[in-house]
Amino acid sequence: MTASRKYLVIGGGAVGSIFGWRMQEGGADVSVVCRSNYAAVKANGYNITSIKFGNHTFTPNQVYRSAQEAVSNGCIYDFILVCTKSLPNIEEPTIVVSPSITDKKTTIVLLQNGIGIETYFAKAFPENPILSCSVYIDVIQLAQGTIDHGSTSKLEYGLYETSASDKVRDQQALKEFESDILAGDIDSKIADNIQRTRWTKIVWNASFNPISVVSGGNNSRELLRNPLTNQLLRLTMTEVLVLGEAITGERVASCSNDEYITNTFDFTDNRPNPVTPSMLVDYINKRPMEHQVILKNPIDLAKKHNISVPILETIYTFLITLEEKNLAPVS
Amino acid sequence: MTASRKYLVIGGGAVGSIFGWRMQEGGADVSVVCRSNYAAVKANGYNITSIKFGNHTFTPNQVYRSAQEAVSNGCIYDFILVCTKSLPNIEEPTIVVSPSITDKKTTIVLLQNGIGIETYFAKAFPENPILSCSVYIDVIQLAQGTIDHGSTSKLEYGLYETSASDKVRDQQALKEFESDILAGDIDSKIADNIQRTRWTKIVWNASFNPISVVSGGNNSRELLRNPLTNQLLRLTMTEVLVLGEAITGERVASCSNDEYITNTFDFTDNRPNPVTPSMLVDYINKRPMEHQVILKNPIDLAKKHNISVPILETIYTFLITLEEKNLAPVS
Repeated sequence: MTASRKYLVIGGGAVGSIFGWRMQEGGADVSVVCRSNYAAVKANGYNITSIKFGNHTFTPNQVYRSAQEAVSNGCIYDFILVCTKSLPNIEEPTIVVSPSITDKKTTIVLLQNGIGIETYFAKAFPENPILSCSVYIDVIQLAQGTIDHGSTSKLEYGLYETSASDKVRDQQALKEFESDILAGDIDSKIADNIQRTRWTKIVWNASFNPISVVSGGNNSRELLRNPLTNQLLRLTMTEVLVLGEAITGERVASCSNDEYITNTFDFTDNRPNPVTPSMLVDYINKRPMEHQVILKNPIDLAKKHNISVPILETIYTFLITLEEKNLAPVS
Repeated sequence: MTASRKYLVIGGGAVGSIFGWRMQEGGADVSVVCRSNYAAVKANGYNITSIKFGNHTFTPNQVYRSAQEAVSNGCIYDFILVCTKSLPNIEEPTIVVSPSITDKKTTIVLLQNGIGIETYFAKAFPENPILSCSVYIDVIQLAQGTIDHGSTSKLEYGLYETSASDKVRDQQALKEFESDILAGDIDSKIADNIQRTRWTKIVWNASFNPISVVSGGNNSRELLRNPLTNQLLRLTMTEVLVLGEAITGERVASCSNDEYITNTFDFTDNRPNPVTPSMLVDYINKRPMEHQVILKNPIDLAKKHNISVPILETIYTFLITLEEKNLAPVS
């Protein structure tokens, strides 16, 4: 029997806990870097209730405070699962990850939303395999180390190639990850074109998220019910679909853009509870929002490709001015 | 000597007080319909300090509570100056004016911002002369009946024609108004094309006003200093300039659109104090904003002419959702 592969989850919140748990269940050795919930998880592990997987206490093989600590005993990781928010406007995304990465060996698995998230890692680690993932999961951390998971945990993933990529080694990493994630019973598949998949995902994220904030705090149902925000969602999604198609060279929607948007609206509206988009949750809690990778990087790509995205730019401008006021230190 | 012409000012706030006062100084008989400040004005008139005209107490010939009351003694008005806010989304604009208008006789003078404000009156009074005015004035009501006026009181005006207009009679009304307003020492002129003039004015109003609200409450200087809102102002103004040119068939800016916007920015930024746009003042005071005539009517005209105004539509959507929350009754 071969030794189990070593995984390190960076960002041991709700998403990281589920994926870490499932990899461990599949046979991997899984350590977790926690920040705010370190003490709780170190003491008692994660107390998880899950409609999909049942209830369980997930005890990571090791719990660490930082990536530095995670390698202080000489451990070398095969895979790093990056489950933090992506806030390159606030901090270079590789900083909290770098110490745990062994050059040319560790596969970097990015479980993050947005466009262009891979570029930061590709620049810092051009010779490491990078896996880019689109994550679909309904999970929240109710209290430190207490996780409530619903019925969805879906992953689409694919390699992100750099000019220095070693194709043979990268394919090997992809196969190993596939083997481990399937062992963990995660609904997953290798995407034909992971960039197209990422664009599909931000159609929702780049519309519902910022519009919920700028419109004064509205959940998905309120946004869909109001004819004006309903129409704005539609126009914003159309801009993203057209842009994504131009950038990836493939259709982003699986049908006509209008039909795709209608289906997305119906799917969103038919969820048992209205969705409070994550940007609104962050805004309400006076935390930074992921607008760089969800809005600004797409807008910059639009500029580069000479594509007009006036609605995205307008929404982004309002979001930024609101965040500046929201995050301003209270005097 | 002929009898002085009879004027009724509807909306005896800051703007109405100055124009009413100047008409009276020019020799007209001026009555005023007041709402919130009725008791103060009825008792003591207007206490006006003015850089341009000096300080004075303006005692209207009559002060009334309503247009009904203004005609209850049988008085017939030659001119009605409509100085209320224009809020057709809340109330048909002619309602508070109609009782004081004598069919086919009274000239309706609209001292209001926005696009399409005349249509409501033209529909209700197709056979009365209608004068459309662009007003440039720096004046506030500090307390009920206490008015602080700066150095500007400028009026550009012109006839608004309906299919039932009597051109000879309308020209006569225009001349009488010109005579009276000049007698009152108001800096004024008949516009070559008053609709073009109105579009020029809303270039500022349709940009600074709503952007100040949706961005979370920023005055003119804050909006100009932030590169993102500065750019959004520019893009919004460009949409309005292009739209106004298409609608009026004339150039709206007196130079290139870019140069015009730069000049407008400089002029606004060089004012001694930053401007808190009136929509933001209304929003902060939980009062309805003039978005129908400043944004929605232009957007509707754009649709009718098949002109794309995505930024105006986006801004309008956010403004409306914010107002809905802001004006909602507190439970």
